[in-house]
Amino acid sequence: MNRKQLFENIQRKRSFLCVGLDTDIQKIPEFLVDEYQDAIFEFNKAIIDATADLCVAYKPNLAFYESLGLQGWEALERTVDYIRDNYPDQFIIADAKRGDIGNTSAMYARTFLGNMVFDAVTVAPYMGEDSVTPFLTYEDKWVILLALTSNKGAFDFQFIADETGEKLYEKVLKTSQQWGTTNNLMYVVGATKAEMLKSIRSHIPNHFLLVPGVGAQGGSLQEVARYGMNQQCGLLVNSSRQIIYASSGTDFAEAARTEALKVQQEMDELLKQAGI
Amino acid sequence: MNRKQLFENIQRKRSFLCVGLDTDIQKIPEFLVDEYQDAIFEFNKAIIDATADLCVAYKPNLAFYESLGLQGWEALERTVDYIRDNYPDQFIIADAKRGDIGNTSAMYARTFLGNMVFDAVTVAPYMGEDSVTPFLTYEDKWVILLALTSNKGAFDFQFIADETGEKLYEKVLKTSQQWGTTNNLMYVVGATKAEMLKSIRSHIPNHFLLVPGVGAQGGSLQEVARYGMNQQCGLLVNSSRQIIYASSGTDFAEAARTEALKVQQEMDELLKQAGI
Repeated sequence: MNRKQLFENIQRKRSFLCVGLDTDIQKIPEFLVDEYQDAIFEFNKAIIDATADLCVAYKPNLAFYESLGLQGWEALERTVDYIRDNYPDQFIIADAKRGDIGNTSAMYARTFLGNMVFDAVTVAPYMGEDSVTPFLTYEDKWVILLALTSNKGAFDFQFIADETGEKLYEKVLKTSQQWGTTNNLMYVVGATKAEMLKSIRSHIPNHFLLVPGVGAQGGSLQEVARYGMNQQCGLLVNSSRQIIYASSGTDFAEAARTEALKVQQEMDELLKQAGI
Repeated sequence: MNRKQLFENIQRKRSFLCVGLDTDIQKIPEFLVDEYQDAIFEFNKAIIDATADLCVAYKPNLAFYESLGLQGWEALERTVDYIRDNYPDQFIIADAKRGDIGNTSAMYARTFLGNMVFDAVTVAPYMGEDSVTPFLTYEDKWVILLALTSNKGAFDFQFIADETGEKLYEKVLKTSQQWGTTNNLMYVVGATKAEMLKSIRSHIPNHFLLVPGVGAQGGSLQEVARYGMNQQCGLLVNSSRQIIYASSGTDFAEAARTEALKVQQEMDELLKQAGI
């Protein structure tokens, strides 16, 4: 999916919501596990059907699928194919946080952007240019590079400043702009640091940002929009647990829809306020 | 495997070689692909049988297996189980370079150190403490944290210095020592920067280092030993392509053994010189 299509979807659906499919076999309703061999896929399918008109992106986190071995990979592949076949306007993100030496990153890129039908993959910047660029060679596919993450550990290294005062995450933003463009590179910026979006936007006014950490991790959607939105929205805001685990009963899909709808309505309002 | 056992294996086998199982379906002998349904596993099995007495560790890089989807994961699981069942003295490393927020890293840790029988997993430091510590909760299992990598991109961020002159990779070494011990934490330090091992050893005299980049990537084993070896060896030196792709014919396993033997003999000499 290209940038134009993504923005059109945001305008049409009045939403910049990304639903995180962090599907944990320990947390999904028990009746699904009893009833279905591939309970993970059945859960995802129900969540997707209940929310697809309210969001523009889905983001399975690979850790949750890998932890189930072969069965997990199969559920992941089925989920991605299901979204692609039934909701072709969804932007699908492999939240994989990969990154390795060039020839190895090329293998990861092939996995997620070539063999599987993801639109984007999250990549960790520590190993630098040749660990990132192999992901940028696929047409209309995206790298979402970690810049400022939403966890406590973000403070360990991401804020280290050089002698000019430039912080590591700023260096990541600055340097990586030479590797990709606003058409194939986004950044992860945690919502728990929403006020920092203002300074981040001074470095990258036009790039899309993937913002995790709204909801269960504590960030505020309004703050994110205030500091992070640009003329083409420029935001994908992720919510995982708050939506997908809204209920552990048989009404889990409806409950997920109710939560997603609340977020979408707030997003509609924020888009209006921004003249989008 | 604990530190004592690892050192005993090094002493007994006169080797600190780690064989990297970067097994690429495009690069293994064609007759294997024609003959076997699971050619990746058959290749690995032959390489392992030919080299197990010459090395102390195997390191499958996950990218190569993931790129084959379900089939790849199955080959990986079979490979790890084969090593564990037949060569229980081998230290098995999941070269996965993972790292995510705490609850997600815990899932990755469970995958590689709980469900699968790896001894260690490589982890990227960008997201800080809570992305690393979930991997440190498994007894006699290890985190191998990226510090200074062997690729060109290492220069993009890892050498950024703060106002006191301390570089990012040094900060990673220093800070992460508060998270783990010499009994559950190792570091990746690329052999292409062997002369830097001297200063690295001033920060972490006793930790084991996993050193990639000897051979195909250009580093020198003698330099690595000169600057990096400590009283308990403290080194695992990885070689992948130079060994596993030594021949593309039916003699691929023998050729791998010949290459591994050369390295082992050099290592024997270096251990003797160090009085080990």
